[in-house]
Amino acid sequence: MSTIRKVVLAYSGGLDTSVILKWLQDRYQCEVVTFTADIGQGEELEPAREKARKLGVKEIFIDDLREEFVRDFVFPMFRANTVYEGEYLLGTSIARPLIAKRLIEIAALTGADAIAHGATGKGNDQVRFELGAYALNPDIKIIAPWREWDLTSREKLLAYAEQHGIPVEMKHKAGGSPYSMDANLLHISYEGRHLENPAAEPEEDMWRWTVSPEKAPDEPEYVEIVFERGDPVALNGERLSPAALLAELNRLGGKHGIGRLDLVENRYVGMKSRGCYETPGGTILLKAHRAIESITLDREVAHLKDDLMPRYASLIYNGYWWSPERKALQALIDHTQEHVNGWVRLKLYKGSAMVVGRDSPTDSLFDPRIATFEDDQGAYNQGDATGFIRLNALRMRIAAKRKHR
Amino acid sequence: MSTIRKVVLAYSGGLDTSVILKWLQDRYQCEVVTFTADIGQGEELEPAREKARKLGVKEIFIDDLREEFVRDFVFPMFRANTVYEGEYLLGTSIARPLIAKRLIEIAALTGADAIAHGATGKGNDQVRFELGAYALNPDIKIIAPWREWDLTSREKLLAYAEQHGIPVEMKHKAGGSPYSMDANLLHISYEGRHLENPAAEPEEDMWRWTVSPEKAPDEPEYVEIVFERGDPVALNGERLSPAALLAELNRLGGKHGIGRLDLVENRYVGMKSRGCYETPGGTILLKAHRAIESITLDREVAHLKDDLMPRYASLIYNGYWWSPERKALQALIDHTQEHVNGWVRLKLYKGSAMVVGRDSPTDSLFDPRIATFEDDQGAYNQGDATGFIRLNALRMRIAAKRKHR
Amino acid sequence: MSTIRKVVLAYSGGLDTSVILKWLQDRYQCEVVTFTADIGQGEELEPAREKARKLGVKEIFIDDLREEFVRDFVFPMFRANTVYEGEYLLGTSIARPLIAKRLIEIAALTGADAIAHGATGKGNDQVRFELGAYALNPDIKIIAPWREWDLTSREKLLAYAEQHGIPVEMKHKAGGSPYSMDANLLHISYEGRHLENPAAEPEEDMWRWTVSPEKAPDEPEYVEIVFERGDPVALNGERLSPAALLAELNRLGGKHGIGRLDLVENRYVGMKSRGCYETPGGTILLKAHRAIESITLDREVAHLKDDLMPRYASLIYNGYWWSPERKALQALIDHTQEHVNGWVRLKLYKGSAMVVGRDSPTDSLFDPRIATFEDDQGAYNQGDATGFIRLNALRMRIAAKRKHR
Amino acid sequence: MSTIRKVVLAYSGGLDTSVILKWLQDRYQCEVVTFTADIGQGEELEPAREKARKLGVKEIFIDDLREEFVRDFVFPMFRANTVYEGEYLLGTSIARPLIAKRLIEIAALTGADAIAHGATGKGNDQVRFELGAYALNPDIKIIAPWREWDLTSREKLLAYAEQHGIPVEMKHKAGGSPYSMDANLLHISYEGRHLENPAAEPEEDMWRWTVSPEKAPDEPEYVEIVFERGDPVALNGERLSPAALLAELNRLGGKHGIGRLDLVENRYVGMKSRGCYETPGGTILLKAHRAIESITLDREVAHLKDDLMPRYASLIYNGYWWSPERKALQALIDHTQEHVNGWVRLKLYKGSAMVVGRDSPTDSLFDPRIATFEDDQGAYNQGDATGFIRLNALRMRIAAKRKHR
Repeated sequence: MSTIRKVVLAYSGGLDTSVILKWLQDRYQCEVVTFTADIGQGEELEPAREKARKLGVKEIFIDDLREEFVRDFVFPMFRANTVYEGEYLLGTSIARPLIAKRLIEIAALTGADAIAHGATGKGNDQVRFELGAYALNPDIKIIAPWREWDLTSREKLLAYAEQHGIPVEMKHKAGGSPYSMDANLLHISYEGRHLENPAAEPEEDMWRWTVSPEKAPDEPEYVEIVFERGDPVALNGERLSPAALLAELNRLGGKHGIGRLDLVENRYVGMKSRGCYETPGGTILLKAHRAIESITLDREVAHLKDDLMPRYASLIYNGYWWSPERKALQALIDHTQEHVNGWVRLKLYKGSAMVVGRDSPTDSLFDPRIATFEDDQGAYNQGDATGFIRLNALRMRIAAKRKHR
Repeated sequence: MSTIRKVVLAYSGGLDTSVILKWLQDRYQCEVVTFTADIGQGEELEPAREKARKLGVKEIFIDDLREEFVRDFVFPMFRANTVYEGEYLLGTSIARPLIAKRLIEIAALTGADAIAHGATGKGNDQVRFELGAYALNPDIKIIAPWREWDLTSREKLLAYAEQHGIPVEMKHKAGGSPYSMDANLLHISYEGRHLENPAAEPEEDMWRWTVSPEKAPDEPEYVEIVFERGDPVALNGERLSPAALLAELNRLGGKHGIGRLDLVENRYVGMKSRGCYETPGGTILLKAHRAIESITLDREVAHLKDDLMPRYASLIYNGYWWSPERKALQALIDHTQEHVNGWVRLKLYKGSAMVVGRDSPTDSLFDPRIATFEDDQGAYNQGDATGFIRLNALRMRIAAKRKHR
Repeated sequence: MSTIRKVVLAYSGGLDTSVILKWLQDRYQCEVVTFTADIGQGEELEPAREKARKLGVKEIFIDDLREEFVRDFVFPMFRANTVYEGEYLLGTSIARPLIAKRLIEIAALTGADAIAHGATGKGNDQVRFELGAYALNPDIKIIAPWREWDLTSREKLLAYAEQHGIPVEMKHKAGGSPYSMDANLLHISYEGRHLENPAAEPEEDMWRWTVSPEKAPDEPEYVEIVFERGDPVALNGERLSPAALLAELNRLGGKHGIGRLDLVENRYVGMKSRGCYETPGGTILLKAHRAIESITLDREVAHLKDDLMPRYASLIYNGYWWSPERKALQALIDHTQEHVNGWVRLKLYKGSAMVVGRDSPTDSLFDPRIATFEDDQGAYNQGDATGFIRLNALRMRIAAKRKHR
Repeated sequence: MSTIRKVVLAYSGGLDTSVILKWLQDRYQCEVVTFTADIGQGEELEPAREKARKLGVKEIFIDDLREEFVRDFVFPMFRANTVYEGEYLLGTSIARPLIAKRLIEIAALTGADAIAHGATGKGNDQVRFELGAYALNPDIKIIAPWREWDLTSREKLLAYAEQHGIPVEMKHKAGGSPYSMDANLLHISYEGRHLENPAAEPEEDMWRWTVSPEKAPDEPEYVEIVFERGDPVALNGERLSPAALLAELNRLGGKHGIGRLDLVENRYVGMKSRGCYETPGGTILLKAHRAIESITLDREVAHLKDDLMPRYASLIYNGYWWSPERKALQALIDHTQEHVNGWVRLKLYKGSAMVVGRDSPTDSLFDPRIATFEDDQGAYNQGDATGFIRLNALRMRIAAKRKHR
């Protein structure tokens, strides 16, 4: 156990991180700074201030990071049409590097030599917090209480809380939520307990952000998104800030039952786990971004991006946002978005978002005069196809002759 | 113009290929063999026999290729979770190599020295037919009338037909379908005319295989698919042949409005084009296959497949099914499917198919004892994560020290 | 045959392009502008001016492009450690986009509506010239005489020359060089005739730029190259311009018999061809660049570059320098070179260049305190490896348990 | 510290593993089984038997694994033209999975519940041994003494040896070799001590397998290698077993000073390290294999292999030979080698091996009638290139028009 002078704790104000706060004070005899961020999780943050103060914390940071989160993390990720393992929109993964960055910034501001977080030793989040922190400050000390302490059961945790005067709400005594949840402006996730049997359907009352498709409106709703350089900037004619735009997309998607996902995924630490996600706005945004790219992006650039996307997604999932290889890929991705300008129209209805129109007045590469099935006035010379095919076939013809020989 | 002795024509029995048939006889003074395949397009084939006979054809091939199509082309492609440009399930692309193969086989059987097809000089299908044909018979001659003749407008085509006694149905005189369509057991596609403005929503009455989500049943329906070595083998408890299984999935998907797609895609010949697709069964199958892989496939194998998938998809889209590089990729893909056994349950409802359960009695890699948030009895040592993170961070820490120097 | 007003011809002053010059005037009845570039091929350019003038050309462009060639084409390519098919350093490929660019610039300057070049219809160079030209000016007309005319044998060409008063040197009458050659500051290449049997060793007197290793000095020579942001900037202590540096490396490499290559390569147009190359400076530079990256570049960034390199090499080989996908990759590559600063020492001896030392006073990531086999004073905690290995093994252990079940 | 019943130790008979042997007996109070393999390291193995016996070992395994090593590990790896970080031929990496496999096999044979090895906690070899062992037996216990014990300096190790009656040779007392070395039929490696300054040239007397190029024969020597399905099977006309062939190539390469490498590489555990390698036979083999592929392998298959090679190399370097993703890649690689039959001739001279001829009587794809610069009798239609180029340029022309708009 190393000596710690002062530690910045990622503090939610909930039971677990309150216990951690106390445990850090006891165990390391060090000062604790708390950091609580609003990244759109939809919870009051002021109670966290009060709780921290009661536990003797002198330096309390409560930051509204919603715009930074969407502008500098979510939108850059969506420029790549990022999806992990074919399905997951990385809602949790993309928030962690921002928290890591802010923890390190606050450590610098407050002269702390360590940070601490409440992620367990089995999950991806510990990796994301810590890889980010190490990349930003190689000398930082990191305390992950769940990997250190002996509070290995809920009972022991509750006992520790009561023993140290940490208020325990009724719901905790009753066993707590049947799910482990995480939320931010991009998504809410559910893991654990009832979901640990991947054969069983999640219960309807688990879902919090979206209505069930069955209860969604019987009328479809159309939405139009304007993109500039690959990022959405306006919704239904109204220019919105990044966070406001994503929040509104969440509202619309949630209303129409869009963005539920039930998935078994592969964690970086080596096991499979089952997670359920609601990503209403992100689900719409992904489709819209692909659609605006479909008319503004060159074919080979689009394919290059598609080839690299799974790797980029894994980097984010695994916690390498602050790595040099993620930044190198981002340089490529951002470079490609120069012409990704225009609008997309989608139809939202009972669980699905369908693209029904797209155009780019300034940057469209769709040329109806060439693509047309009608007479194209010579814009395209069909005879060119003969040579194109014959030379592309040449190597295979030579090989086929070998076979016949 | 080369000398042709006998040509095998991919013949649908429709107006265009009937005109081609006659034109081949006139232009090349050669014998024409017709080949008409049932790949599940849902049209009567016997009229094609009659029409061919009337046009003087002596060798007429009408083949039911449905089982071969699904077993040897569709299913192998789905083993890779194949999607082109993030959206398109390659319904047209995957049928062409089978037609090419059969054309070459019939050419060998009948002693023909050429094949002919009715694909235009602007599209992908000419490439797919011809690359396949050349790969299978390097000496074959290929006639693509649309790249050769001067029947460059519908009026000229109709005039030619009437002049040569080819029956022209009323619908053709009236201008024909507003869309260019293609169908087989995997999908039906729409291109051209009304769709040439990518900003405009397709008209509801265009869609033929699926009801609109709005008109789909108000009650969700569950379906269970059993996989063996990566291929679906049973549906709702009933073991079915490949073609029968896909047909039944199409029925279910169509009933629930599943599998519509409105897309601007990049053609191999260099232009963007707008296509609409209905792939009801395939849309369900793709989700189900990803789900069964999610519990049976190793993480890194799954990621390797994801990394290679866009390339594999492009090969199929571009017509390289019979190429050695597609076969090499298939060797890898097929190798990975050994343990992809188990079942998946999906909920179909008003346009969407959602996975709600999956299991593999024999091959699951999901181990709840390790993934659990509860006490795992020591199956996983949380302390291992410390070293894992620290060594993964090491290179970034060294680099960060460089920065601070 | 389209109408041409004025055409810019890539003109070497040699027999072939002189015939082309005349043929263009005759065939298209158009004005011809000549463009001759010094890219380090080591030939006098002024005779080309005289010849062009005699053939009635009024606008004659003779440009020294050596610095631009090395600075904007060769060095950016070497930042990626670019090698085609494991061996070829792309000496010819990388010069073509510069010629294409200059042809289009001169067409704009002179009001020409077409360009012409002397590349044959079988090779890669026609593709490289024309893809570049089309990318830079989509409306340009391109004349490739070798694909058009009937001067299909050397005899016909010579007859045409004599008939039109084009001077024919003795060597041409004697049958010309036994090789088709191309040279610039990066390399000289040999193809054709004597090399068309890939089983036979090239004759020693073919090689022009390098002595045979057998005749190279018996004493090794050391050379030290300084890199800044991935580009070489100084040699043996002397700061040199890009072209001067590469020229000096060529001299050194040539003296020591370095950089010969005998290769069968795959052309973009579909056939295999045998080529021999001398790339003395480039061969040294490639090794040196890898070496400076080896101590300054992050592992994962280096691996990302290695993964993308073959694709980048194919783009250049195939003529896609001016494509958006090459530029996107370049954005990534250039981004990675920020810290590639330092020096490399190599030993040149009888055909090989071996790295024997490298360091970066400002940007080294090599930390002897960590890598040491000696006591490292706690810089690295060996115990971390246990967790690192155990978590990396976890998925394989779970799979192995499945196997045993 | 877990309870161990019986442990299989990878035992060289040298000082370090002898100390480990004794330490295991003392520390774990368990029985030790020794395993010593001949993989071509060129050392007598019988002394190891004697030493083990003296230390009380009852079950002693001494296996000649040379043929298996080359046939089932080295050759499969060379089918992929495998090179790590552009330079390293993976000589150490490829031997470890064989040792891991044999350790697990012997554990099964002898009823041991653990294995142990002498690799340190900083290197790659611990990872390779242990990932392999875990993949083959998920329940095996692994003891890595260097990560556990307190013998952290050479002095303590020597003291322990003397204290326990383990014979210590004079060279050890004198400080041991200035390098950490590893050898097998593929290579010998040097790390540590004198090499820890990457700026300094290795001393000439370090190299053991190759003469310096300066001292190599003044006459070049030609060698001809025959390949079948991608593997070398005969040398200079004589059919040889895999191990015999590689040994003979080593002799020839060593004689001519071929295969030295001085490298800074990136270890999997996160740091850079400097290594020097001699791989005489492998260096020749790599060039030869690329050459035989150059005339027998399809272009796109070759490029697919090149794209995947760095990933495959990293898998082997990082210790994932027994992983499912390596096996999946191997399935692809092996599939591609069917036609890789023929012969290659190389010239060996003072440090370099140059391919000077290659042919495949049965499988060549080199068709001189098509590639020729002479009249090809119509085998290739140059006019095809026009359409080929025009359609490949189409997307860039459309984009260029956008720019001008």
